[in-house]
Amino acid sequence: MVKIGILGVGTVGASVANILETNADIIEARAGKRIEVKHGVVKNLNRDRGVNITLSDDPMEVINDPEIDIVVELMGGVDEPYALVKQALQKGKAVVTANKALLAYHRYELQAIAGDIPLMYEASTAGGIPIIGALKNGLTANHIVSIQGIMNGTTNYMLTKMINEGANYDEILKEAQDLGYAEADPTFDVGGFDASHKLLILASIAYGIDAKPEDILIEGIENITQTDVAFAKEFGYEIKLLGIAKKAKNGVELRVHPTMIPKDSMIAKVDGVMNAVSVVGDRVGETMYYGAGAGGDATASAVIADIIEIVRGNTAPMLGFKKSLEDAQELLPEDEIVTQYYLRMQVDDKSGVLARITKELGAFDISIESMLQKPHRNDERVKLLFTTHTCQEEKIQAAIFELKKLDCVHDEIAMIRIEK
Amino acid sequence: MVKIGILGVGTVGASVANILETNADIIEARAGKRIEVKHGVVKNLNRDRGVNITLSDDPMEVINDPEIDIVVELMGGVDEPYALVKQALQKGKAVVTANKALLAYHRYELQAIAGDIPLMYEASTAGGIPIIGALKNGLTANHIVSIQGIMNGTTNYMLTKMINEGANYDEILKEAQDLGYAEADPTFDVGGFDASHKLLILASIAYGIDAKPEDILIEGIENITQTDVAFAKEFGYEIKLLGIAKKAKNGVELRVHPTMIPKDSMIAKVDGVMNAVSVVGDRVGETMYYGAGAGGDATASAVIADIIEIVRGNTAPMLGFKKSLEDAQELLPEDEIVTQYYLRMQVDDKSGVLARITKELGAFDISIESMLQKPHRNDERVKLLFTTHTCQEEKIQAAIFELKKLDCVHDEIAMIRIEK
Repeated sequence: MVKIGILGVGTVGASVANILETNADIIEARAGKRIEVKHGVVKNLNRDRGVNITLSDDPMEVINDPEIDIVVELMGGVDEPYALVKQALQKGKAVVTANKALLAYHRYELQAIAGDIPLMYEASTAGGIPIIGALKNGLTANHIVSIQGIMNGTTNYMLTKMINEGANYDEILKEAQDLGYAEADPTFDVGGFDASHKLLILASIAYGIDAKPEDILIEGIENITQTDVAFAKEFGYEIKLLGIAKKAKNGVELRVHPTMIPKDSMIAKVDGVMNAVSVVGDRVGETMYYGAGAGGDATASAVIADIIEIVRGNTAPMLGFKKSLEDAQELLPEDEIVTQYYLRMQVDDKSGVLARITKELGAFDISIESMLQKPHRNDERVKLLFTTHTCQEEKIQAAIFELKKLDCVHDEIAMIRIEK
Repeated sequence: MVKIGILGVGTVGASVANILETNADIIEARAGKRIEVKHGVVKNLNRDRGVNITLSDDPMEVINDPEIDIVVELMGGVDEPYALVKQALQKGKAVVTANKALLAYHRYELQAIAGDIPLMYEASTAGGIPIIGALKNGLTANHIVSIQGIMNGTTNYMLTKMINEGANYDEILKEAQDLGYAEADPTFDVGGFDASHKLLILASIAYGIDAKPEDILIEGIENITQTDVAFAKEFGYEIKLLGIAKKAKNGVELRVHPTMIPKDSMIAKVDGVMNAVSVVGDRVGETMYYGAGAGGDATASAVIADIIEIVRGNTAPMLGFKKSLEDAQELLPEDEIVTQYYLRMQVDDKSGVLARITKELGAFDISIESMLQKPHRNDERVKLLFTTHTCQEEKIQAAIFELKKLDCVHDEIAMIRIEK
């Protein structure tokens, strides 16, 4: 019999307790031992959690209980769970966490503290999809060429609706909020921050790279318009909020942003709240993993898979490396990212304007791949939409800065990166 | 330093040796130890294998070598590798195999022989896709509701071409043979036998169920025509050769056959030689795994992942169960399968014919869901295409038997099962 304690019995915690009870027989057959929740910890003891486990409001009752073998951390936040997970590990207890923020900030410290004690986190990234296991165990023969992931269901739901139903960003955000897919303050999701936490976790396993959210390029979907959607359709793209990790010549690109991707790629076909991660290995080629990225039961499925692996005697290293890489990868500075770009701008509807714009781009060695001109509600202006051939981020940013200064260019210039 | 021996240095074996050399540093960092091929065994020593390893033609040189820790079996066949793998395990050597046929017939005997010695086989099913790991470790909290897999690249390539380009079966088979996707005798692929081996392996991990290829329903794609393809398109289906494992009330359905599936399902979107496996768990919902199902490097990627897990000290049970299930699942007899069906038949172009057919179906409680009538090259006949509501396999087979006796029905009646 293995006894576990759960710190934080919300939706996921209740699902963990519930599944361990209802699927107890098959879980025991797979793990080799019975697994039982001994104790749950909540902030507010007065709220009914709908679970049949002993609850207290003192996490130390779990940490200090010598009968508890595995601590499951589902509290959220960073500082408090960090302190508690640390103590649990120091007492020799294995830990399972679904806490992406904790790992985005402290995964390397936790790895050092854990040593040979299992610390597992399948549920932290893409919910029920066993992507951590795939990267940590399944693709280990490969140098990872790239990871592209739809790791946030809220934004994928919103973009799918914008594309399929022609709805505007604000309408669809309200709908997502009404359905409970988006928070009252949606920034963490729509701004790309949630996805960035998950990307950093995957990048550690793929590349052994240490970075924090503030170190990497993060852009949200707030500025996507129906004009962009229409352009994407016309040129054979879907728009997805992707977390991207990519081996470049001089380092690893890590970035989260709306991305135009060819509509016949597998990841472009992933609609609604679903998550998917495409991983390209130098030998295996492209593999893709698809499933529910959130929800109590899907997340609990991953938490329990980790518990079972620990009970079986898991020996995989926490971040996928038994030894540190001699030839360690560095984070590539944002400026050095190289990709293709889509630009949208309002310009005067006059002859000579296009020449001025292409000249400005040419000064930065940026050449245009395709272009579309659309009418603007103001008769004297047009919308100019185009894509560039590959160029360096630094140059496109500088070009946009210069283009904005032209008197024939009005308002903001919108930019979406393209991955082929 | 871990030393391995490879039985069978063909395309996959050469890739294993090659990747272990070129990706040695990252593999060592992930495994914790250097991994080296000490010895390879081939039938014909005169052929150049393009690898830099010592070769012999005597497998016992690997089996009896006390320095070799892990034996990699890539010979193909059943009896000879079974004898050799058995001896390797009995000498305490871990084994990695990519041999689906060996496992389709002997996985339970091998599990018993192996005991606590690792015997791994990620490469046996869906090549480079880490589907064995996903089922064995990632989804263990779940009762598996169903598995639906495109596990044979040859047939998926052929069906994709038939659907997208309107080519006929015979033309496309010839093209696949010219491209090296299909063998001179294509029966093993097009007849569904290859897929059945893989399905049986997955079914063991999902359900703990022991069955052999001859125990289950296997149908190939040989009888699919452009008429079926056109019908599928009109009614929103794709046609895929699927391996299906499905929990029913009184047992587990295991079957391989061409299947009409809704074209907006993720697995329907998998085209060409690629493989994909959709697994539905009772808690996680649908997850899907996509990638290359064949090819030297993709398969070798899976072989090496297994080697690395063994070097790290893998403790997962061979077939996913540490203990046998008390409430073990039984294979459901073919007759008791319940699904929807598509039928294609040639009938006389006369009034009253449809009434006779629906009456015959009604006698078996089979009701029609949708119907289409198409002209036949013979003016006095029409092609009648329709789908049924769910009914039992036994009844549809009996109905087809009776329908064939009608004087208004000519030639064969084609049937394709439908999964929604």
